[in-house]
Amino acid sequence: MAEVIDIDDPADPRVDDFRDLNSADRRPDLPGRRGLVIAEGVVVVQRMLASRFTPTALFGVDKRRVELAGELADVAVPYYRTSAEVMAEVVGFHLNRGVLAVARRPAPLSLDEVTAHARTVAVLEGVNDHENLGAMFRNAAGLGAEAILFGDRCADPLYRRAVRVSMGHVLRVPFASVPDWPDGLDILRRKGFQIIALTPDGAAMNLATAMTGERVALLLGAEGPGLTEEAMRATDVRARIPMSPGTDSLNVATAAAMAFYERVRT
Amino acid sequence: MAEVIDIDDPADPRVDDFRDLNSADRRPDLPGRRGLVIAEGVVVVQRMLASRFTPTALFGVDKRRVELAGELADVAVPYYRTSAEVMAEVVGFHLNRGVLAVARRPAPLSLDEVTAHARTVAVLEGVNDHENLGAMFRNAAGLGAEAILFGDRCADPLYRRAVRVSMGHVLRVPFASVPDWPDGLDILRRKGFQIIALTPDGAAMNLATAMTGERVALLLGAEGPGLTEEAMRATDVRARIPMSPGTDSLNVATAAAMAFYERVRT
Repeated sequence: MAEVIDIDDPADPRVDDFRDLNSADRRPDLPGRRGLVIAEGVVVVQRMLASRFTPTALFGVDKRRVELAGELADVAVPYYRTSAEVMAEVVGFHLNRGVLAVARRPAPLSLDEVTAHARTVAVLEGVNDHENLGAMFRNAAGLGAEAILFGDRCADPLYRRAVRVSMGHVLRVPFASVPDWPDGLDILRRKGFQIIALTPDGAAMNLATAMTGERVALLLGAEGPGLTEEAMRATDVRARIPMSPGTDSLNVATAAAMAFYERVRT
Repeated sequence: MAEVIDIDDPADPRVDDFRDLNSADRRPDLPGRRGLVIAEGVVVVQRMLASRFTPTALFGVDKRRVELAGELADVAVPYYRTSAEVMAEVVGFHLNRGVLAVARRPAPLSLDEVTAHARTVAVLEGVNDHENLGAMFRNAAGLGAEAILFGDRCADPLYRRAVRVSMGHVLRVPFASVPDWPDGLDILRRKGFQIIALTPDGAAMNLATAMTGERVALLLGAEGPGLTEEAMRATDVRARIPMSPGTDSLNVATAAAMAFYERVRT
């Protein structure tokens, strides 16, 4: 049973892990500093409680504690109960989701662990937008892609905004880094993955016919620059989504969703 | 050739159409008040110039005017040239895209006009999030859906944020309202459209096999509530995207993209 502890003073050090969430240099989820992981809102907190990111504390209004009562029944974690006003002072803004949970960042998973039973994985290069990352994890969870892999120059998927946009699926869909980018893609090839680059290039194969592998690793780059030539050269096939002329490439999370969908559509 | 007029005074009434863009009650794009249409950034302004939303003025820094020189060569519209600082004072915040265009809202298109040659259209009910609307138009443009139709309770697609998120495709993909919702869906049926409701309901047909019509109208509701029972009853078939158990429904613009993709994938 979660222990309920009332917090009346915004300066109370017991809620320091939830302080100044929007501060560029003091936010608790800043990688390389404290690097904590923050879940916000009932649904995302529920997903954190069911994940490998074990919360060390919750902080919120009583109404949200009641909504979480089922999940909190078997958990030995303090619930720092407070008012919306005190919460706003600690957090730095009014947070209308009304509840937060914080976890330490666990040890990273390995490429071997996250791909062991995977049929479909996404491999990202240069995807540095937190909302796109969050949407990518949400789409992977919904459409059954089993892991997200990070090549070069991607943003931190555990930033609060990415966690929120993912609806908490960042905490559930496993992810790992590909070492020695892009040569490390060979590790996936040796595991039997067909390595497919998604590109707007009109000369590429149609996505619907390109994905022939029993296991597929889909490479995606950021909107605009796309994949680097080095990453392109390390792939087995280039695939494109049929797009209308004179339009922009799709959002990277949406493009990934098309490919995930193609794998499960029938 | 666009006439260049220098603006040094933030109070200059000639740029009143660009004033207080973030003001809840004074913004120039508020429907029911002035209801202007604002394009921001070079790409979106280019799309406005190529659309039926003829700009009456542009406002921006000189650098952006130079980038737009090709499009502005044949256009008789004033370019109110200013500094980033004056622009920020007029607009109400620092706008790093550096250029805006404003258009009067033209007369709405009719359902007949926008569906005349369409094979694939989306019909929205209760989609009241501007970013989702913008993403919907972007996905429609990219994947070749020819029109967006509005049933009940949708947000204004011409709000500045929707225009921006759509990358300007709100100005290009035609849209119209369905009268007498949901009975007006019969108009589409009489035009030969198969009316398909997209739903997470596990009992629904698989999307890949449901869309058999030569012409397809896809009904989509907001995330969470989904389509009303009245709208559901007015459809020919219910279709679902194969989703993993224990996940949320996809974002409505992403769900639409799956269906648009299904129509063009091969």
